[in-house]
Amino acid sequence: MPVIPSAYAKLRARGKELSLLGATGGLLGWDQETLLPPKGHSFRAEQSAQIAGLSHRLATSPEIARWLDDCSSAFPADSAESACVARWRHDYLRATRIPPALVEENELASGLARSAWVEARKKSDFPAFAPHLEKLLSLSRKMADLWGYSDQPYDALLEGYEPGWLTRDVTALFAKLRPRLVSIAEKSFALPRPPSRKNIRGHYPRNHQEIFLQQLLPKIGFDTAAGRLDSSTHPFCSGLGPGDTRMTTRYDETDFMVSLYGVLHEAGHGLYDQGLPESQLGTPLGQAASLGIHESQSRLWENRIGRSRSFWKTWWPDLIQAFPDLSRHNHDDCWRASNAVERSFIRVEADEVTYDLHILLRFELETQLLKGDLAVRDLPAAWNELFEKLLGLKVPDDARGCLQDIHWSLGGFGYFPTYTLGNLTSSQLWQAANRDLPSLSSSIDNRDYQPLLRWLREKVHAHGRRYPASELVQRATGKALDPEAHLSVLEWKVKELAS
Amino acid sequence: MPVIPSAYAKLRARGKELSLLGATGGLLGWDQETLLPPKGHSFRAEQSAQIAGLSHRLATSPEIARWLDDCSSAFPADSAESACVARWRHDYLRATRIPPALVEENELASGLARSAWVEARKKSDFPAFAPHLEKLLSLSRKMADLWGYSDQPYDALLEGYEPGWLTRDVTALFAKLRPRLVSIAEKSFALPRPPSRKNIRGHYPRNHQEIFLQQLLPKIGFDTAAGRLDSSTHPFCSGLGPGDTRMTTRYDETDFMVSLYGVLHEAGHGLYDQGLPESQLGTPLGQAASLGIHESQSRLWENRIGRSRSFWKTWWPDLIQAFPDLSRHNHDDCWRASNAVERSFIRVEADEVTYDLHILLRFELETQLLKGDLAVRDLPAAWNELFEKLLGLKVPDDARGCLQDIHWSLGGFGYFPTYTLGNLTSSQLWQAANRDLPSLSSSIDNRDYQPLLRWLREKVHAHGRRYPASELVQRATGKALDPEAHLSVLEWKVKELAS
Repeated sequence: MPVIPSAYAKLRARGKELSLLGATGGLLGWDQETLLPPKGHSFRAEQSAQIAGLSHRLATSPEIARWLDDCSSAFPADSAESACVARWRHDYLRATRIPPALVEENELASGLARSAWVEARKKSDFPAFAPHLEKLLSLSRKMADLWGYSDQPYDALLEGYEPGWLTRDVTALFAKLRPRLVSIAEKSFALPRPPSRKNIRGHYPRNHQEIFLQQLLPKIGFDTAAGRLDSSTHPFCSGLGPGDTRMTTRYDETDFMVSLYGVLHEAGHGLYDQGLPESQLGTPLGQAASLGIHESQSRLWENRIGRSRSFWKTWWPDLIQAFPDLSRHNHDDCWRASNAVERSFIRVEADEVTYDLHILLRFELETQLLKGDLAVRDLPAAWNELFEKLLGLKVPDDARGCLQDIHWSLGGFGYFPTYTLGNLTSSQLWQAANRDLPSLSSSIDNRDYQPLLRWLREKVHAHGRRYPASELVQRATGKALDPEAHLSVLEWKVKELAS
Repeated sequence: MPVIPSAYAKLRARGKELSLLGATGGLLGWDQETLLPPKGHSFRAEQSAQIAGLSHRLATSPEIARWLDDCSSAFPADSAESACVARWRHDYLRATRIPPALVEENELASGLARSAWVEARKKSDFPAFAPHLEKLLSLSRKMADLWGYSDQPYDALLEGYEPGWLTRDVTALFAKLRPRLVSIAEKSFALPRPPSRKNIRGHYPRNHQEIFLQQLLPKIGFDTAAGRLDSSTHPFCSGLGPGDTRMTTRYDETDFMVSLYGVLHEAGHGLYDQGLPESQLGTPLGQAASLGIHESQSRLWENRIGRSRSFWKTWWPDLIQAFPDLSRHNHDDCWRASNAVERSFIRVEADEVTYDLHILLRFELETQLLKGDLAVRDLPAAWNELFEKLLGLKVPDDARGCLQDIHWSLGGFGYFPTYTLGNLTSSQLWQAANRDLPSLSSSIDNRDYQPLLRWLREKVHAHGRRYPASELVQRATGKALDPEAHLSVLEWKVKELAS
């Protein structure tokens, strides 16, 4: 049956073309956030739209359906090839079920909504943004209907970010998480001497921060000959392609932890990108499994490594050499400060404990909005009420409330839960790694992060997108995703902080 | 006749698509030279090849022939539209006359030749490069035959870089230039106290150079909100698109003139790119006229402005503030040093007087190679003989002789003369501007470069590629290009240096 390998080869070649175009679009975006001269933005938007259009055309051309059909029963069910064909089919159906006119309408509406949101947030003026949110919700419902779902429209949106997860399963998981997380937060707020980053403020020149970070990156296994670190307003990591993983961070000269934890987070993403099998470029085996799995990698390096007592102790000599102002403190104070848990309004500034409370709130509200159980005009009140219940603070204005995030202004309903899925996964992986590698903590105490990285490479990175995220977690840790590991990690930490 | 404007609109839309893709390919190239991590190069080559392939497909698709036919007699002969149609036809014919297999063969051969050249230059081993040169010459002859020419194959190659110029006209121009240029060079070498950059060596920290250059750029009219200055091994300027003109330079901390003249040169290119009419994006009216015209802009700012006595005098207070080491000297010494004329082997390091001697040599040899009057194996001997005749130096090895430039290793026969055409044009424009603007020198003495820039914008930049280069020069200066202006500029300068 010579037609089958040839159809598979064609799918793979098309995948390679899409990877190349994706990387080129990625560079346009990276450059836009880091270097593009102010007057170049409108032309750049046209360049990005052109590449996106070319990609869309390549990803949706009808011959793909034929190639997929030719491959449909060509490989054993548990083979890598069969998994690739399934992922390609998934992507093709999602891309082709939305008519181009609706894609355009949605892009136009998002563009307008984003501008309106920027202004509305500045003035804390929710009514100015409300009609845009309404429109985006109605377009998302329309797209969800076209994509299809068995239970509720939100399923079809979630599928775009975290394939394989259903709304009801996320709801159940979050319901288990919530009461214990609230109680951990309460305990943290009540610590007798609550640690705070403010105590560590000093003068930490940007170039000293840069030098320190360039020293840290290779030590945790990031290949600096195959990537870069630059700066941008909103930190991100962009795995452009083999040998080219780009991270950004921002610098605060009074608080070096901003860039330190920013970079450890992005480097977690970067290590995943660098660990994807290069030989599989163009197939799903060379792609990340999901947003949640990606986030689990960044959170693991940021929180389990970077916020550990061991990290502060073992890096202390290098830290005080890089930052003379730091020698007024000791590593234990810094460790405490890096783990400060505080009530705060803004998700992106939240600590590890309260972060997921911000997410639970968003998930609950956006599922209600989608279903129509919550009217757009009632969103601010619902937000503020739930916020006070979860975090014990009265929201002073919508800029610090339901207008703070960009996601909804882009129509990104279904994205938020991936953050919490990532956090839960990071702790479950961490526990499994410690179980599999009894000497892991002692190697980390020697600043040897290779055993951990090798374990992640083998259990997570090497598989690319072969398995759905939930199956990948099951295979790597021996059980389905559950909040238990994360909660016990946090409980143990708060106990440590109290001691 | 509604079909005609519609065909024109289609040509224009296609032109816009090609501009966007060209800018994206340009960013891939710019990033490769400035920032790309070492391990990202092989993937980047694939990205660039993909964009080049997409461009080629868009530029050669058969419907263009139909659109061109529909427009063939639709506009008055002297209209801008008619000029655009003529340029589009020119580009289309050049792109479609070479069969794809030959394009590929040439790309493959250039790739191999470039690698072989890098090694051969290292070891000064011409015989290792000779078969590649032979191959590229034969491919270029083949392409020239397909493009067509009336007199000799070199015409068809020259047309790719400097449309409208014939080999015999360049030969005649260069023959007029050569004897007087040799005599100016001889006079310069014989100056009683020959100036030299070595006298000005000191410690000029890179960040001081950067600060000074960022202050200089807006002053000469470069819009820094619509462009950037970065660093790379080989300086270049890349006009990526409206609002995004990127220059690079290199820094030598012992000699700030390396970056100063590098940047004035690239900024000349950059000012031209920024001056092309943005509203004409996608038509030839929004493109540069030719390589020679581009070079005339860079040379004018570098040499007529930057190497003038006025420049050193008026920038002196800023210079000694930026570079304390400089206060041991005076501005007149620096002006002399910046105009040092010296015998040297390497074209890219040559001064303004000897530079064109390097070009005359290459032009003479490459036209002979193309015609078959000079055998590849005899190139080193011919090079060394002519070099001694023109520059009075014995070439010690081929690395400093016929292996020094990258152009031939890329099959770029016909490129070299554009440098000298640019130099001659820059002086002819300079004389015309001074004639048109009687107060030009006094405004420049007040560091007001606006009148000069406005004149260049009006006479050169605003026309884009509407006129062939030779007609553009005729219109801007009132006469055909001639070496007279350049020679008199140089003779006057050597007289000044002797005083």
